Amino acid sequence: MSFINYSEDCEFSIQNLPYGVFSTDANPKHRIGVAIGDQVLDLSTITDLFNGPILSECQGVFSEGTLNSFMSLGRPAWKEARTTLQRLLSTSEPTLRDNAELRKRAFVPQSAVKMHLPATIGDYTDFYSSMFHATNVGIMFRGKDNALQPNWKHLPVAYHGRSSSVVISGTPIRRPCGQLKPADDPPSVGACKLLDFELEMGFFVGPGNNLGDPIKINKAQDHIFGMVLMNDWSARDIQKWEYVPLGPFLGKNFGTTISPWVVTMDALEQFAIPNCKQDPPAQPYLHHDDPYTFDIKLLVSIKAEGMKEGAVVARSNHKNLYWTVKQQLVHHAISGCNMNPGDLLGSGTISGETDDSLGSLLELCWKGTREVDLGGGIKRKFLKDGDEVILKGYCQGDGYRVGFGECTGKILPAHPC
Amino acid sequence: MSFINYSEDCEFSIQNLPYGVFSTDANPKHRIGVAIGDQVLDLSTITDLFNGPILSECQGVFSEGTLNSFMSLGRPAWKEARTTLQRLLSTSEPTLRDNAELRKRAFVPQSAVKMHLPATIGDYTDFYSSMFHATNVGIMFRGKDNALQPNWKHLPVAYHGRSSSVVISGTPIRRPCGQLKPADDPPSVGACKLLDFELEMGFFVGPGNNLGDPIKINKAQDHIFGMVLMNDWSARDIQKWEYVPLGPFLGKNFGTTISPWVVTMDALEQFAIPNCKQDPPAQPYLHHDDPYTFDIKLLVSIKAEGMKEGAVVARSNHKNLYWTVKQQLVHHAISGCNMNPGDLLGSGTISGETDDSLGSLLELCWKGTREVDLGGGIKRKFLKDGDEVILKGYCQGDGYRVGFGECTGKILPAHPC
Repeated sequence: MSFINYSEDCEFSIQNLPYGVFSTDANPKHRIGVAIGDQVLDLSTITDLFNGPILSECQGVFSEGTLNSFMSLGRPAWKEARTTLQRLLSTSEPTLRDNAELRKRAFVPQSAVKMHLPATIGDYTDFYSSMFHATNVGIMFRGKDNALQPNWKHLPVAYHGRSSSVVISGTPIRRPCGQLKPADDPPSVGACKLLDFELEMGFFVGPGNNLGDPIKINKAQDHIFGMVLMNDWSARDIQKWEYVPLGPFLGKNFGTTISPWVVTMDALEQFAIPNCKQDPPAQPYLHHDDPYTFDIKLLVSIKAEGMKEGAVVARSNHKNLYWTVKQQLVHHAISGCNMNPGDLLGSGTISGETDDSLGSLLELCWKGTREVDLGGGIKRKFLKDGDEVILKGYCQGDGYRVGFGECTGKILPAHPC
Repeated sequence: MSFINYSEDCEFSIQNLPYGVFSTDANPKHRIGVAIGDQVLDLSTITDLFNGPILSECQGVFSEGTLNSFMSLGRPAWKEARTTLQRLLSTSEPTLRDNAELRKRAFVPQSAVKMHLPATIGDYTDFYSSMFHATNVGIMFRGKDNALQPNWKHLPVAYHGRSSSVVISGTPIRRPCGQLKPADDPPSVGACKLLDFELEMGFFVGPGNNLGDPIKINKAQDHIFGMVLMNDWSARDIQKWEYVPLGPFLGKNFGTTISPWVVTMDALEQFAIPNCKQDPPAQPYLHHDDPYTFDIKLLVSIKAEGMKEGAVVARSNHKNLYWTVKQQLVHHAISGCNMNPGDLLGSGTISGETDDSLGSLLELCWKGTREVDLGGGIKRKFLKDGDEVILKGYCQGDGYRVGFGECTGKILPAHPC
């Protein structure tokens, strides 16, 4: 229990303690904070309280404007920070609780902060790890008999994404222009007509590896800091024309939105459930038995202009991923590719098996052959200008939640193309 | 003419003045230098001499450890720096020439420096812009009738690459491990057997654009700082199995080597030649008439262990590119993708029309059906451990050269996979 009060369904419980980077009107400097209840604990004001054996030597990481240095410290440091924070925020600990002056400096209401990217993202990679999603897309574009490509069950398929256009929740997304190729006409230039979201989760890399040296599967979790919600905005028509043979490019690089609070693997650990059964068995370099799939409930809502709140269009779960995040990381590095603290790896669209658990409009509306109903007579096949897409996610504990907050973005009309 | 002596075939003439980042044994700090003859002019020692109207306000950029800030200043600043440097290095200017103490501090022999990446590369993108290369690969994998994909002549095809594994010339490259899929057998894990180079050039972005706002073709050159040689190392067997449907991943991300000296567009301008004729005509957003293709002679050598010097295996030219670097940049940003100073955009393999101008072993040995002869009984279909690949490139002026130096890398044996 914390001396900061919050309700049972509050996502930022003392069991969570996610990290983010924020600023305020009064102090525009980017600082590292931890969400608790409806407050942010400003770690830059309490660096001296991290006085355990590891962190007392590197308190400076909590004065930085990104989490990269803290991420680079590794698991023992992360665990020490968590223990320290849980103690400092607990009902029984007077240090913060009884120091009115310090509390005034150290806590900021979440309603008063502006959130920023939690880390400088050197490289961003996106996987394709939900079998339901890959199968659905395969059926739509290649038919039922060739739905999954031959490599899909042997390795976690992925592509390098664009790190510069990863933005924080709340950033508006401009509808992109590009080349479109109607079926029987020559290509033309125009605004994307088939704009979509993709429900994903991403994880941040902690300590990296040197170029040329892989990461072993039994060490993978030492390199995984925590997770966020992610919306991999997709321009289906631009992507369709451009992507052969080198993969998605402009269809993806106009924006990728992440939620601001990084929920640590230490907080998620208690929600681990058995991994998806893999058949054929994973190659030895990818094989692990320990559960590293998480029972994270995921929701997608769309809020069209004029709607009071978003209408839920899909409910999915992190457990719908065939490949674990450990396997994603280890596969990425098997070539010797060097990972760095703050690198972001996305899951790919997390679709479930049922019609109401599909993680994109492409699937929900099955390539435009049906509509989702937002209520009040509003229907969608793809996103319209002014639509806001809201992703949410949380784990349900016994009397508390560990949640991710929101990952939102609103579509701005295209510039003249 | 410069008071620094060099021969007619020296690539670092006063007409060149490329920028790089270096350190020395005596001073490990990364500093910005300019190559002239066999010397490096250490700009951190002469920042106060950049006293023109623009640079006098931002001399600090020359004290930094990367070129990103200088790149961000834009063309008028780059031109002023070039004018200043050409004056300072000219035979008639006494400032450096006659100040023995300053000369001693300001010049370092190139043989005594260690070169580093010229910029922090936020994002790296690789194009596929030689029609000869794309056609050759297409013939090998899809047959003559479907060699070029339908989109190829309409847009400069590209994929996002991995920026963390871009390394400076001289860095050894570890042969990657990964999944291999022999034709009739199940996939297995092992060291890449079909290791290849790709002869490319890359360019560095100067000032960027905001997310959501494209770059217009008539402003493109304001965003292009300069060029380097680039070797896009490729694991053909890993790539072949993994790349469907999202493009190259581990087959490319184990290393990309660039030459250390960035030759500015101002230095290359005089070697501009008419662009490749495009049929069908480029879409209006990509159309430009001004020549922005350059007569840069390119050479690839392979030096196997025990060889005294490399054997030339290919001679190509920058003019073998169908799409110009302006078109690459503008296409990249048409979606609103934000470019940043220091971003690197690669050309794709620069193959010519003739058998001796092919920019990869895949093409030179036509998918392993023939060998290249390195002399002394040494032949290659793909790269062996210990092989060093050396790229060179230069423009030939009237009595002088503007060159890129070397882009080299040697293959280390794979770790146990």
